[in-house]
Amino acid sequence: MAKKQKLKIIPLGGMNEIGKNLTVFEFGDEIVILDCGMTFPDEEMLGVDLVIPDMSYLVSNKDKIKAVLLTHGHEDHIGGLPYFLRSMSNVPIYGTRMTIGLVERKLKEHGILSVAKLNCINAGDTIKLGNYFKAEFIRVNHSIADSVGIALFTPVGTVVHTGDFKIDPTPIDGKMFDLSRLGALGDAGVLALMSDSTNVERQGYTMSERTVGQRFDEIFAAHPYERIIVATFASNVHRVQQIINAAIKTRRKVAISGRSMLNVIDVAIENGYMKIPEGLIINIDDISKYKNSQLVIITTGSQGEPMSALTRMAFSDHRKVEITKGDLVVISASPIPGNEKTISKVINELFKKGAEVIYKALAEVHVSGHACQEELKLILGLVRPKYFIPSHGEYRHLATHAKLAEAMGVQEKNIFIISIGDVLEINKESAKVTGTVPSGNILIDGYGVGDVGNVVLRDRKHLSEDGIIIVVFSLNGKTGKIVAGPEVVSRGFVYVKEADAIIESIKKVSIAAAEEAIRKNKKPGVDWPAVKNAVKNALSEHLHEVTKRRPMILPIIMDEGK
Amino acid sequence: MAKKQKLKIIPLGGMNEIGKNLTVFEFGDEIVILDCGMTFPDEEMLGVDLVIPDMSYLVSNKDKIKAVLLTHGHEDHIGGLPYFLRSMSNVPIYGTRMTIGLVERKLKEHGILSVAKLNCINAGDTIKLGNYFKAEFIRVNHSIADSVGIALFTPVGTVVHTGDFKIDPTPIDGKMFDLSRLGALGDAGVLALMSDSTNVERQGYTMSERTVGQRFDEIFAAHPYERIIVATFASNVHRVQQIINAAIKTRRKVAISGRSMLNVIDVAIENGYMKIPEGLIINIDDISKYKNSQLVIITTGSQGEPMSALTRMAFSDHRKVEITKGDLVVISASPIPGNEKTISKVINELFKKGAEVIYKALAEVHVSGHACQEELKLILGLVRPKYFIPSHGEYRHLATHAKLAEAMGVQEKNIFIISIGDVLEINKESAKVTGTVPSGNILIDGYGVGDVGNVVLRDRKHLSEDGIIIVVFSLNGKTGKIVAGPEVVSRGFVYVKEADAIIESIKKVSIAAAEEAIRKNKKPGVDWPAVKNAVKNALSEHLHEVTKRRPMILPIIMDEGK
Repeated sequence: MAKKQKLKIIPLGGMNEIGKNLTVFEFGDEIVILDCGMTFPDEEMLGVDLVIPDMSYLVSNKDKIKAVLLTHGHEDHIGGLPYFLRSMSNVPIYGTRMTIGLVERKLKEHGILSVAKLNCINAGDTIKLGNYFKAEFIRVNHSIADSVGIALFTPVGTVVHTGDFKIDPTPIDGKMFDLSRLGALGDAGVLALMSDSTNVERQGYTMSERTVGQRFDEIFAAHPYERIIVATFASNVHRVQQIINAAIKTRRKVAISGRSMLNVIDVAIENGYMKIPEGLIINIDDISKYKNSQLVIITTGSQGEPMSALTRMAFSDHRKVEITKGDLVVISASPIPGNEKTISKVINELFKKGAEVIYKALAEVHVSGHACQEELKLILGLVRPKYFIPSHGEYRHLATHAKLAEAMGVQEKNIFIISIGDVLEINKESAKVTGTVPSGNILIDGYGVGDVGNVVLRDRKHLSEDGIIIVVFSLNGKTGKIVAGPEVVSRGFVYVKEADAIIESIKKVSIAAAEEAIRKNKKPGVDWPAVKNAVKNALSEHLHEVTKRRPMILPIIMDEGK
Repeated sequence: MAKKQKLKIIPLGGMNEIGKNLTVFEFGDEIVILDCGMTFPDEEMLGVDLVIPDMSYLVSNKDKIKAVLLTHGHEDHIGGLPYFLRSMSNVPIYGTRMTIGLVERKLKEHGILSVAKLNCINAGDTIKLGNYFKAEFIRVNHSIADSVGIALFTPVGTVVHTGDFKIDPTPIDGKMFDLSRLGALGDAGVLALMSDSTNVERQGYTMSERTVGQRFDEIFAAHPYERIIVATFASNVHRVQQIINAAIKTRRKVAISGRSMLNVIDVAIENGYMKIPEGLIINIDDISKYKNSQLVIITTGSQGEPMSALTRMAFSDHRKVEITKGDLVVISASPIPGNEKTISKVINELFKKGAEVIYKALAEVHVSGHACQEELKLILGLVRPKYFIPSHGEYRHLATHAKLAEAMGVQEKNIFIISIGDVLEINKESAKVTGTVPSGNILIDGYGVGDVGNVVLRDRKHLSEDGIIIVVFSLNGKTGKIVAGPEVVSRGFVYVKEADAIIESIKKVSIAAAEEAIRKNKKPGVDWPAVKNAVKNALSEHLHEVTKRRPMILPIIMDEGK
């Protein structure tokens, strides 16, 4: 039976876009899910807090789901879980200890830890899932500890998914990408490879995380008298360990600032991912007891996030740390695209306070967690898959990765650039996109899940550009006479002092338009929608003429004859 | 008399921030202005079209102003002129032919060309301005043709302002930065140097514009069959000339797309800045008459601007050009910080249409127009000024340029990092910031100049995040009874279908709050502000509790007892 049947691969996120990774593998009546991420809203999603994949396909197939497998603990791979668990809490979740530790923290915050079936695995483990699937976890290197890729053994062959990865020959934890296992899988024959495309535009190799540690040692040695403040990604446990190592070597104490940094360090210590000598970490409240030369502060905010610890320090809004001359700030991160300007503002403020600032433009204090071209070729060369599905990237990355695979010998017809919602059906004989399932972005705003859609976003955009003008008056529904108003209220339109003349003109135009609409009406009573539209159109035209703006116009007409 | 008197240098823009360059030089009762630019709004200036410097200091001293000197024709140096001329149209304006040609186009669009006193000068010219000032225009290289720096001779000494510059030993027009004149000025003694800080974070030299031409030749040769579409900055006449040269060599015709591109090419041809053989340029309407291999299209949109020609091509919204397989798109520009994501979207769409795309991340198809560290050192070494004022950059750039100058031998106490509005008074004996003048951003929104300020922007931001809820009801001012309503209208808050229950709860909470406020009032009549506030506060709390959002709440209460 399985001979003719095909494996379905359905990305619900992370494909042809950045973030909210979620891939569905379906065979017969069984489903295995790889990762369950979220993403942060882009600038057009005004007021939205976060974005998760549309999971309606999963909800309507929830009895089929055997497991969620997690590759690592970054938000774009685990952040969708609290929403997934709302209707599918019985599904077991598998990940390494670091990953599960972070998931536990997250679910606790959402108050749903008790319902989740969390399972820790180790790299190298294989687990059986339902009748059709077996999953093997393969050690990879990435910018968070204990990351894995997955080999999924299915009735039609093996699918290898790299997860997010780089190949680090000198990793901080000594655990290198398990290339030999990958090669063995390749030798045995791999049906399909899904591989991380993030850095496919970069030639060569991504530098080892260890090179950053050497740079820290140099910087610390060159600044013996300064207080050193290092901002980095909270989740990069190995980076934090290297900062701590540099502190130990220079006999400095370490204080931690930022909730997520404290959180991740807790998880890392609990699970044995970090080595910190007794007494090294001091409370941020106690930093005044030490000299500048005795201190390192590790902080969040390397992306210039408005509420982060580093941003608050820069803008003198941090209760514990004040930046002054004598401080050295090291920003150990690259800007995520879109964050360039906010980081730049923070750097400017730090300079103004007299701090010395070391950041990417001037010094190599960061390396990427994703593989460059030569590493991607290595993976293709080891796995030698029949089918190749470039993953984890924007379209440009997928297309460039596809070309790379072709150059590495994968046949063009066997390379599939797919989008979220596409159903790719494959077996040894053939592969084809056969249809689509519901997919897209679900926007989370406050407690609301999916109640903010295009109409609401369009309105928010309109409101943000030229504000709103509200015109209220009361009409007698029988006589058609205006009995009260108009009252005109505006917000975000024009500075009130300048607005008196405009407000008066708005009243005049509104009344004229309403009265004309009432006069034109041949039927008995008042045609309320017609009056509203007349006021709206007349005002819109009038305001564009005198101000060249198009505020949202909201006529509210109350019926007084009721 | 002039012995003790000091020269005032007052930047009203461009200093300690990017864009809207405007520097005031004042001696006795005379003022000379250097550049008069605009800038584009940043993402927090919701709905704003453009930003100009606060010119109130100039308006209140307009009888002193002898001239506006323009260094080059970029918007951040000339874009403020239409607003400047509104109240100071009698001031003569000086610039090279290219610069004045672009100013003419701009003023024509604003319908004020006839009032402006425009004067063309050549690099090397010296003009006398009032009793105190002489200005010499010095050839520099930059990413727009015919750029100059200025040596301003004043009673207290010579001030050199580089304008925006790089040093290009092989410029396309053969006109190299006049380093020997700069050296002669340095030998004679320069009081103060103001120098471009944009690229101070980059080591080495900026590559010559000519290297891009070599790259175009290679790319054109490697793509003999494809239609080639090149996007670049309209104002980079030399870049456009090099694209045209590559087209000539490969026997292709050239079509132009984008209004600003057509505009600049017209000005450049009129004034002899470009050499284009007869019959080379074809109308964009005629491209269907040619084979792909016979065509080059030069277009605007290299920053992914939403309405630009390239963006419209990418999103199939361009009436003349449809992107397909067989197209090569070259994006000959770097993203200006903040534009990374919009450009990325355009690149993804072009890939999806099947085009090959060459852009900065993969190939050197762009060079900067600003000098790197070694060039900046060269200028400092030639000019050897007493005072140094790093200019044209964010604070981080100014601070880094200040350090560079110190390393080049300028005394630390003679280096001034100043901000817009600062008044720096200098003569041979001393220099000091003695005060400030009014300065800042004037926001232009539609026809409004300065009528959008912080209150309006704050409201727009609030509206953009969670929308607005308007509650209207009528109260009898004598009886305190609600006689009509409440009507509840929301925009940008929550999708209407989901909102029924919330709207009902809003009505209930509003009535309860209003009635309680009326009941509590001990004085005769209705305390209208108290009722409004009660409704607002009760609703705000209620909505945050049930939705975790904070929409703007606008209670409108009509008085029916009048």
